[in-house]
Amino acid sequence: MEKIQVTIMPEGHQVEVEKGSTLLDAANAAGITMKTSCGGQGTCGRCAVKVLNGAVQGGDGNLSKTHKAEGYILACTATVDEGPVTVDFPESSRLSEHQVLLDDNVDDIIKENRTDDFEDTEAAFVKKVQVTLTEPNLMENASDFARLSTELRGILETEHITISYDALKTLPLKVREQNWQVTVTCLMQEDAAEIIRVEAGLVDTPPYGIALDIGTTTIAVALVDLATGKKIHQNGTFNRQASMGDDVISRIVYTEEEKFGLRETQSIVIETINGLLDEVYEAENIRPEEVSAMMVAANTTMIHLFLGIEPKFIRREPYIPASAQFPVIKGKELGIHIHVDGAIYCFPAVASYVGGDIVSGALLTGLEKQEEFWLFIDIGTNGEMVLGNSDLMMCCACSAGPAFEGGGITFGMRAMAGAIEKIVIDDDFKVSYVTVNNAPAVGICGSGLIDCLFTLRKAGIINRQGKMQEVATDRMRQGEEGPEFVLVRAEESGNGKDIVITEADVENLIRAKAAVFAGIRVMLLKMELPIEAISKILIGGGFGNYLNLKDSIQIGLLPDLPAEYYDFIGNSSLKGAYMALLSRKVFEHSVELGKGMTYLELSDGNEFYDEYVQAMFLPHTDMSLFPSVED
Amino acid sequence: MEKIQVTIMPEGHQVEVEKGSTLLDAANAAGITMKTSCGGQGTCGRCAVKVLNGAVQGGDGNLSKTHKAEGYILACTATVDEGPVTVDFPESSRLSEHQVLLDDNVDDIIKENRTDDFEDTEAAFVKKVQVTLTEPNLMENASDFARLSTELRGILETEHITISYDALKTLPLKVREQNWQVTVTCLMQEDAAEIIRVEAGLVDTPPYGIALDIGTTTIAVALVDLATGKKIHQNGTFNRQASMGDDVISRIVYTEEEKFGLRETQSIVIETINGLLDEVYEAENIRPEEVSAMMVAANTTMIHLFLGIEPKFIRREPYIPASAQFPVIKGKELGIHIHVDGAIYCFPAVASYVGGDIVSGALLTGLEKQEEFWLFIDIGTNGEMVLGNSDLMMCCACSAGPAFEGGGITFGMRAMAGAIEKIVIDDDFKVSYVTVNNAPAVGICGSGLIDCLFTLRKAGIINRQGKMQEVATDRMRQGEEGPEFVLVRAEESGNGKDIVITEADVENLIRAKAAVFAGIRVMLLKMELPIEAISKILIGGGFGNYLNLKDSIQIGLLPDLPAEYYDFIGNSSLKGAYMALLSRKVFEHSVELGKGMTYLELSDGNEFYDEYVQAMFLPHTDMSLFPSVED
Repeated sequence: MEKIQVTIMPEGHQVEVEKGSTLLDAANAAGITMKTSCGGQGTCGRCAVKVLNGAVQGGDGNLSKTHKAEGYILACTATVDEGPVTVDFPESSRLSEHQVLLDDNVDDIIKENRTDDFEDTEAAFVKKVQVTLTEPNLMENASDFARLSTELRGILETEHITISYDALKTLPLKVREQNWQVTVTCLMQEDAAEIIRVEAGLVDTPPYGIALDIGTTTIAVALVDLATGKKIHQNGTFNRQASMGDDVISRIVYTEEEKFGLRETQSIVIETINGLLDEVYEAENIRPEEVSAMMVAANTTMIHLFLGIEPKFIRREPYIPASAQFPVIKGKELGIHIHVDGAIYCFPAVASYVGGDIVSGALLTGLEKQEEFWLFIDIGTNGEMVLGNSDLMMCCACSAGPAFEGGGITFGMRAMAGAIEKIVIDDDFKVSYVTVNNAPAVGICGSGLIDCLFTLRKAGIINRQGKMQEVATDRMRQGEEGPEFVLVRAEESGNGKDIVITEADVENLIRAKAAVFAGIRVMLLKMELPIEAISKILIGGGFGNYLNLKDSIQIGLLPDLPAEYYDFIGNSSLKGAYMALLSRKVFEHSVELGKGMTYLELSDGNEFYDEYVQAMFLPHTDMSLFPSVED
Repeated sequence: MEKIQVTIMPEGHQVEVEKGSTLLDAANAAGITMKTSCGGQGTCGRCAVKVLNGAVQGGDGNLSKTHKAEGYILACTATVDEGPVTVDFPESSRLSEHQVLLDDNVDDIIKENRTDDFEDTEAAFVKKVQVTLTEPNLMENASDFARLSTELRGILETEHITISYDALKTLPLKVREQNWQVTVTCLMQEDAAEIIRVEAGLVDTPPYGIALDIGTTTIAVALVDLATGKKIHQNGTFNRQASMGDDVISRIVYTEEEKFGLRETQSIVIETINGLLDEVYEAENIRPEEVSAMMVAANTTMIHLFLGIEPKFIRREPYIPASAQFPVIKGKELGIHIHVDGAIYCFPAVASYVGGDIVSGALLTGLEKQEEFWLFIDIGTNGEMVLGNSDLMMCCACSAGPAFEGGGITFGMRAMAGAIEKIVIDDDFKVSYVTVNNAPAVGICGSGLIDCLFTLRKAGIINRQGKMQEVATDRMRQGEEGPEFVLVRAEESGNGKDIVITEADVENLIRAKAAVFAGIRVMLLKMELPIEAISKILIGGGFGNYLNLKDSIQIGLLPDLPAEYYDFIGNSSLKGAYMALLSRKVFEHSVELGKGMTYLELSDGNEFYDEYVQAMFLPHTDMSLFPSVED
């Protein structure tokens, strides 16, 4: 196969790709992740690049007029047939590192909500014990494993001791290396222990575990000392599957349309996780084989892709996953950088669109122990929620879409440097804003978009339906795709462009907030409860932490309840995983918790649609639901 | 690395080996297994070859004078430094296919001894069931696995259903392929079932299993229909590990002395087994993935090598194996040609020299259910035996050495074509004999050697100590290594040589038979029983089936009890494995059986040595033990 040389600018890196490859392939080969919300279908228009030297074929697709005029083409639809070519891959078309929510107050939250669950410290997933064996002789000639088991039975108070095949292979050498002293790491079950690692001598290092949250957008890990329960190190990054589409649906489409698509999506998420782990290990100076257990929380699609399980029926009515519970997998089966026989536990899901991340989050909240009704909302790419108390729990997923993560919004972006996260427009249409890292503005992230919706309405720039009004400022203008309001002028922006919000953007945001609120309303109706029955609302998810509560209520995204009813619990999925990693009993409890949730399929019947239509106003057609909102 | 071309004669095959390789390496590269009883150490002198063209270095070692005179060298110590070379690898130096004991009366034997164990047909290791599922909808939206488990719980009457990771991956496609009809194969446990295979549609083929006997010398497999319990097909061959030494000790030495030695010994036995399985599958037109379970019986060293477990301490006092019980391994972990998630069960061992093959054989005999004492002897490369009844069982291993398999005997060989298996010398020293396949004689196999010992003594050629006497025949002569008797003259032999038995050969045979008898005696002494307390003697092992009972008693190998006390049970290891494969309860029973045997370490104390010295006569120094033997 003929190879074509592509020079990546501005770095000047050279890569070779097969003839007929796309420029997106060339970027991947160079280790550059491009923005491809559509999964490389030519429809999102985000991977714009410019050929500086040489010629490429194709490159058409949904390009903005400005980009077209400036000679940009799409990397995903442009192929190289002869070389060499030199191509500029501008920063604005690349996905860069961004803020991933990592919390440092996990211990506190767990202590607050869950103290009683941790009283039984005997329920550890992993135990590491030092053993001194007696030397065998012709009369006392039990096998090495029998000798070791006898000692372990006493130490672990467990009758049934087994050993992994790999650990058995070298056991004879290990027990003799340091004069019959060994340190063994055991995976614990209710009434059994499996030896997975034997170290020669008496070794003091603790057994380690990893809590893992695989979000559609971001991935976070926490390294945990399983002996003390202390969190040692956290790390996070964006999910590199983003190059296969922004949301779960486009990722599933990718697995169906690409040859080896499922294998690719699995590999890329595992590579991402391994990269995070390697950084953690290097920082803490530990080796992968010291990690014996991993607890994974993720939505149902992410778990299917992580494990390489066929996901296609998740996106087809009636939306059936392969399974809602997952086998315990060994490290070596996935190639994850932990001990080869380390156990990987996955939180059970409730349904295709209420996954293990929600069960994990619900576990963290402790709502299943309350007498009063609590509402847990995880606002990410989807909006999932659980409403319940100790008697009854209901959950649902409303397809809010990725608007709050910047998807489908002209200048929407994730919370990276230069993203507008707070914004105020005063009555004279003067705009003030704050960006992430105070970098020159290049776009708007979720919390900025909510502020924006509120402030546009407050300043009278949009009406209750979200339609743009004729207002006396040159910031209001007719753009390529209809009316738009200039938030940041090109001369002060970080990308030399006017940063605008369009009427279509506003409509997308209203759809998203309407879906979330309609979901809450339908659950309340099904349970025959008024909004006031809710005594606490817990907001989780990467985006939740940066959200302006007042503005969210004012636009009708969240119920009009006093601020003290609300708690922001951060990355509840990761925290719940951390919590479950500390105790088998807690994990078992979470399995029961998942089973105890009644799943409400919103696409079944008309109730959701009716509520959704009513919520397509700012804040709502029924203003009595939002008494604090002035009109 | 420079490559040297070696032409293998008489075939004329050409192979390339790295400079510095031995001619043994060249033979291996050409797929030829040479006789190397010593494991390629230059000491057994069996891999004699002749360079026809070109030059090689070395080739020295324990060569016979005749071989040396004829220009032969040893393949194992000869290295090639420049090429090309042409080398004759004579048939007499190669290991060829030979008789492997395969029995067709297994069902009968099992029925006879074990009828009661098979009444509970619910204890199958594998069940294959057809399931018709109801189609999901928005209200009935359980996951595919949950849907399948619900049905299986009813069919299998088992609460706890799991699915293997591999089977889960494609489950969504399988259930939908034939309109929600599937056939699932489950590995069964006491109160749980694991789905390991899902076939689309309603499939009629039964679940299959493999019984496997890994002997030091031979390997045998039986394909079993696990639904009916019928044996479908058997196959056997020699253990290709023979190129690494004839006995377990030299194989362990090989793993220690060669780089990657353990990996090599494991690979070669797995290749041998896979070759046997492939032949069976082709004959029966089934695929490896249709085989869901495998039951393995083998001695302790063979199991260690099969699983790649460090074996070195088995041969060092106090003779400790890594384990006497082995984890259940999946097909994919060993690369065995069965279903990737098929379960491989290994019989537990008792000690380093009483292995799972003896537990399997003991299971077959049913001796643990008898009121009277039964003796089970497996005569292979070692002589292992179990003496016991329902109250008490004792077992031991006497290092008989490989004499009865032809090891250490000038013209000793395995029971291949041309091996003398029966022999009579009359008072005029006329020799008549029968060979395997009636081929021209090339050597003597085990049963022939026993006959030979008896007939040499009867004809007065040797005395009770095994010393050769001056007798009036030109068949008696002084050979290179002392007195020898010509059994077959060169003109009628199949290899152009006089086939002789030497005084040293006789001594080796007497050592071997003395070890077996001394083992029996020490067990009787420990249990304070006279020989007459034994009511049945069961002879197992590949060699046992061809053994002349009368001659064996006359030379003092076996106790002097009436012929009707004896039963020849053939390959008891394979038969026991077949039996256990049919029922989890039987296998569990065999684990208890193994635990119930008291292991007698013969090297501990002087009793064995004293008995051994007394047995170094024909038949024994204490003639009262052999009343039927005339002197």
